[in-house]
Amino acid sequence: MAKMVLLPVLLSFLLLPFASLALTQDFCVADLSCSDTPAGYPCKSSVSANDFYYHGLAGKGKINPLIMAAVTPAFVGQFPGVNGLGISAARLDMEVGGVVPLHTHPAGSELLFVTQGTVAAGFISSGSNTPYTKTLYAGDIMVFPQGLLHYQYNAGTGPAVALVAFSSPNPGLQITDFALFANNLPSAVVEKVTFLDDATVKKLKSVLGGSG
Amino acid sequence: MAKMVLLPVLLSFLLLPFASLALTQDFCVADLSCSDTPAGYPCKSSVSANDFYYHGLAGKGKINPLIMAAVTPAFVGQFPGVNGLGISAARLDMEVGGVVPLHTHPAGSELLFVTQGTVAAGFISSGSNTPYTKTLYAGDIMVFPQGLLHYQYNAGTGPAVALVAFSSPNPGLQITDFALFANNLPSAVVEKVTFLDDATVKKLKSVLGGSG
Amino acid sequence: MAKMVLLPVLLSFLLLPFASLALTQDFCVADLSCSDTPAGYPCKSSVSANDFYYHGLAGKGKINPLIMAAVTPAFVGQFPGVNGLGISAARLDMEVGGVVPLHTHPAGSELLFVTQGTVAAGFISSGSNTPYTKTLYAGDIMVFPQGLLHYQYNAGTGPAVALVAFSSPNPGLQITDFALFANNLPSAVVEKVTFLDDATVKKLKSVLGGSG
Amino acid sequence: MAKMVLLPVLLSFLLLPFASLALTQDFCVADLSCSDTPAGYPCKSSVSANDFYYHGLAGKGKINPLIMAAVTPAFVGQFPGVNGLGISAARLDMEVGGVVPLHTHPAGSELLFVTQGTVAAGFISSGSNTPYTKTLYAGDIMVFPQGLLHYQYNAGTGPAVALVAFSSPNPGLQITDFALFANNLPSAVVEKVTFLDDATVKKLKSVLGGSG
Amino acid sequence: MAKMVLLPVLLSFLLLPFASLALTQDFCVADLSCSDTPAGYPCKSSVSANDFYYHGLAGKGKINPLIMAAVTPAFVGQFPGVNGLGISAARLDMEVGGVVPLHTHPAGSELLFVTQGTVAAGFISSGSNTPYTKTLYAGDIMVFPQGLLHYQYNAGTGPAVALVAFSSPNPGLQITDFALFANNLPSAVVEKVTFLDDATVKKLKSVLGGSG
Amino acid sequence: MAKMVLLPVLLSFLLLPFASLALTQDFCVADLSCSDTPAGYPCKSSVSANDFYYHGLAGKGKINPLIMAAVTPAFVGQFPGVNGLGISAARLDMEVGGVVPLHTHPAGSELLFVTQGTVAAGFISSGSNTPYTKTLYAGDIMVFPQGLLHYQYNAGTGPAVALVAFSSPNPGLQITDFALFANNLPSAVVEKVTFLDDATVKKLKSVLGGSG
Repeated sequence: MAKMVLLPVLLSFLLLPFASLALTQDFCVADLSCSDTPAGYPCKSSVSANDFYYHGLAGKGKINPLIMAAVTPAFVGQFPGVNGLGISAARLDMEVGGVVPLHTHPAGSELLFVTQGTVAAGFISSGSNTPYTKTLYAGDIMVFPQGLLHYQYNAGTGPAVALVAFSSPNPGLQITDFALFANNLPSAVVEKVTFLDDATVKKLKSVLGGSG
Repeated sequence: MAKMVLLPVLLSFLLLPFASLALTQDFCVADLSCSDTPAGYPCKSSVSANDFYYHGLAGKGKINPLIMAAVTPAFVGQFPGVNGLGISAARLDMEVGGVVPLHTHPAGSELLFVTQGTVAAGFISSGSNTPYTKTLYAGDIMVFPQGLLHYQYNAGTGPAVALVAFSSPNPGLQITDFALFANNLPSAVVEKVTFLDDATVKKLKSVLGGSG
Repeated sequence: MAKMVLLPVLLSFLLLPFASLALTQDFCVADLSCSDTPAGYPCKSSVSANDFYYHGLAGKGKINPLIMAAVTPAFVGQFPGVNGLGISAARLDMEVGGVVPLHTHPAGSELLFVTQGTVAAGFISSGSNTPYTKTLYAGDIMVFPQGLLHYQYNAGTGPAVALVAFSSPNPGLQITDFALFANNLPSAVVEKVTFLDDATVKKLKSVLGGSG
Repeated sequence: MAKMVLLPVLLSFLLLPFASLALTQDFCVADLSCSDTPAGYPCKSSVSANDFYYHGLAGKGKINPLIMAAVTPAFVGQFPGVNGLGISAARLDMEVGGVVPLHTHPAGSELLFVTQGTVAAGFISSGSNTPYTKTLYAGDIMVFPQGLLHYQYNAGTGPAVALVAFSSPNPGLQITDFALFANNLPSAVVEKVTFLDDATVKKLKSVLGGSG
Repeated sequence: MAKMVLLPVLLSFLLLPFASLALTQDFCVADLSCSDTPAGYPCKSSVSANDFYYHGLAGKGKINPLIMAAVTPAFVGQFPGVNGLGISAARLDMEVGGVVPLHTHPAGSELLFVTQGTVAAGFISSGSNTPYTKTLYAGDIMVFPQGLLHYQYNAGTGPAVALVAFSSPNPGLQITDFALFANNLPSAVVEKVTFLDDATVKKLKSVLGGSG
Repeated sequence: MAKMVLLPVLLSFLLLPFASLALTQDFCVADLSCSDTPAGYPCKSSVSANDFYYHGLAGKGKINPLIMAAVTPAFVGQFPGVNGLGISAARLDMEVGGVVPLHTHPAGSELLFVTQGTVAAGFISSGSNTPYTKTLYAGDIMVFPQGLLHYQYNAGTGPAVALVAFSSPNPGLQITDFALFANNLPSAVVEKVTFLDDATVKKLKSVLGGSG
């Protein structure tokens, strides 16, 4: 074989037998114009390095004044390169007093890297309802198991920033208060399935834009 | 934050940062007009509560006189809301003497809830060919591991009814006798791959509609 | 081959070549005395038909007077035969006025079969916070996608009963109110991560047994 | 960096930062002395190249005179290196007239490479009971989807050999006739769940060693 | 039931209740004209036995003179029947002196059956960089865990042939030298990320057809 | 129900029916003293918030002078809380001129967040050997699909830092040069399976500590 190593003329032979491997699915960048499937979006046919790159977490997110925080996702909808790869990202910006209210990710575990400030975070186990809480400083990481209720809030005196990774390209985000109070689920039903009284439910529906 | 709680005017700010999450795939109701994929059907774009609801198991199924029983499926083909969710259902009605003949579900385990009557059920392990059999009464449940041969029959003196759940939206149902005798697989082949004689094979092909 | 069919003397030859297949893992009944693993419990070495059978859902569950309902699980902890099979069960009993409060199953989708009475049920999508609600009668089924907040309550004038299947042998059950109020998570934290006021949180902690 | 390339003295620094990666699970050779789990056996702590190598398929298997064939498995029980890797193997030897009777693999798809002779093979779809059959010659391959009934028999005039791969380290092998007739499942039950008459069932039980 | 067994007139009743099961997805032959998805290609609607059969490995592959070997794949792109089934195949032909250079399969483990000649094979674990090497003779099998660097070469005095199975319908094949030298990745980058000098990189780029 | 809300005396009733749910596996913190399994380590029985928290990425890693970089893992071996959760982390520190050489993660995709400096990164697809390369600045993210060769190097004039998440609790790290040159794989074999000449192989074995 050694004697062939310097014969570039043989190159055309070289590539032929492997040509049929070009269908190999190393990745599957989402074609968001197609219908999703249970395993993710169909693959885009034409792909470039930009599909695997995302700039949208580089700057501070738009702060929501109600929670004084911003959650900026880089899920498959924003970052199609993660489709099928079992991972995605987000950025958390929390002003002083800011909070990411109690929520779950129905389809993924979360790994939080604090990059600035001080963050109080916790999750609650099911069954025993045990809270697992920590105060995190820049450089600390914490993991929140899939589907469990958890929260983060700024526990410091300046802005806090965290980068977040998820074990799914599309983990979902269900904020409990929004699920209960930011829609038209009738107040009587909300009261029935929580232990909240009518005045509390109606006040929160008003704040969060719900009706009924 | 507390002081903002009563300011509904802020609502429009609230919803903005989360708008991009609307792509989150909480569920994927099957669009049965599309081609299936190995992970299930592409998702319907417009969904309502009815997609997650099915009435088709409420009544007794159409009894097949040959087996004096009915198997009414609520698989993804009948109940598109289960697409991608790893679960589906069926209803079993067995008249006195009725039987669900020896069969497998190639792609799912089965959980049987007896709701009326008395059901004899069993499955057979591979390798050691051990039968695991039980007589089940209303309220009892039994699990049949994926891919193993099993059966149910009415062991009582009145009708029997069971509800069934599967660990797949599309578990399949392969009834051994139908696989052998309800098609055009030549009798000689059937005899070769079973230990059955020609007369038995031809008789069963005649009963079950097979040819060859 | 045909001429050998009637020679039982050959049986010992028959079984030999397949003896090595006895290790085949048709199922893996949980040995609950071992540590769990991410995929489920190690397998019991000695198994009988009773491992695949469960009687514990046959009777009405013990009603919790606070919710006037009972949730009786047949998860892997109660029903070791489902270990590794991707399925499990539960029974819901709801008295008049009974409710299964807002909750999630962190690790599984749910399929509900109403077997008696009238049940109001719903789940809420993440992202858009859309409620999907139905009134269900005996025979109706409804599916609740994994990880999403949902509830059931008795909407009729007599007792309601439902059988439930899950797409996991251990789906978990996280009741939002219990997660918030039945533990020692400090009231100040609960208030911070919900939009509830101090009086409401303290009242519910008192009712549900929480401290802090 | 280039200037450091020739400084072997730096080697001790090199290895240190990666030492903690030694836990990485590249593979998990089965420790067959432990209990299995739903995902496979616990990993052996001490591993050598021989764990990933198997000689047991090199020779002809022991022919079972009843079927004039041998199925020699290289599943996880024989070949512990495949544990957790989603693949395993077997060898088929079929004398003239030999047959691997109708069977399923409950936990895996099968890929057959014919290496000698002529093999007739087929599987039957569920639902429509359609047979998919082929005559295969040396060099041909055929795939049998998970859980479906299939068979192979020698269709030539000399011995036939095939190598088989499975999409599971432990696919199982359930031969329908053995499941029905090689155990103590009562004849009355077998007759009930097949369409076979009493004489046929009793004859086959006698041949295959079953009782009852 | 027995008395109905001989009444073929009942057949039409028989097939009705199961008709709705025809959607069951026993298999999903790839429709290669559609976009791939993370779980594989959408299913072809019309299927025959030929979809599950492949003749392309029957003959010797086209030898690449640079490596004196041929790798002939039967991945989903060549053999659409394996779509969704977790398995695929290939054939290796190595002349005297032939080699399948160092490579990985990003998405699957490999099982190698040597059918002719003598093959030296090995893989290297990550973390500890331990090589696991064997000399294999006709009939021997070896498994190469997913994603790890491995190689095969002809260690005998005549041609060598091996059949290969993979634990994925589309395992991919990344030959390290081709990844480094058969493209336009700048030489300076290649040198930076390997420990190779400029002359070596430029020579190999020339041989393998790379530029930059 | 409302009238019961204020009756704490009922609490003991409340907790009883749910007590059996305590086995629910919300998470499975690795017991590293046990044998690993293909799905991860068995679960620790006693767990605290610290199991879900890791401080080890907060500081700069120990720079390896050969590559002028440090890769500090927070895989399951260092951070047992990620066991079974499909996610893990690492930190990259690259001095001026530093590089993480060409490598793969056999069992996971990688998501890189650049938090300081300028990073040149790329991966190479299999089949077509196409490089996908980007220059990344603080705040940018890039995803590297599972099993594909990739690299990162400091392309700026000051130190560069990146946080990394993986889609597996134990993704592995196989650095190509270490796999080839930091062990006792004989030089003749290395030369055979790469296109490198003897002098290059021997020099690199010397630098990287290999023998043979």
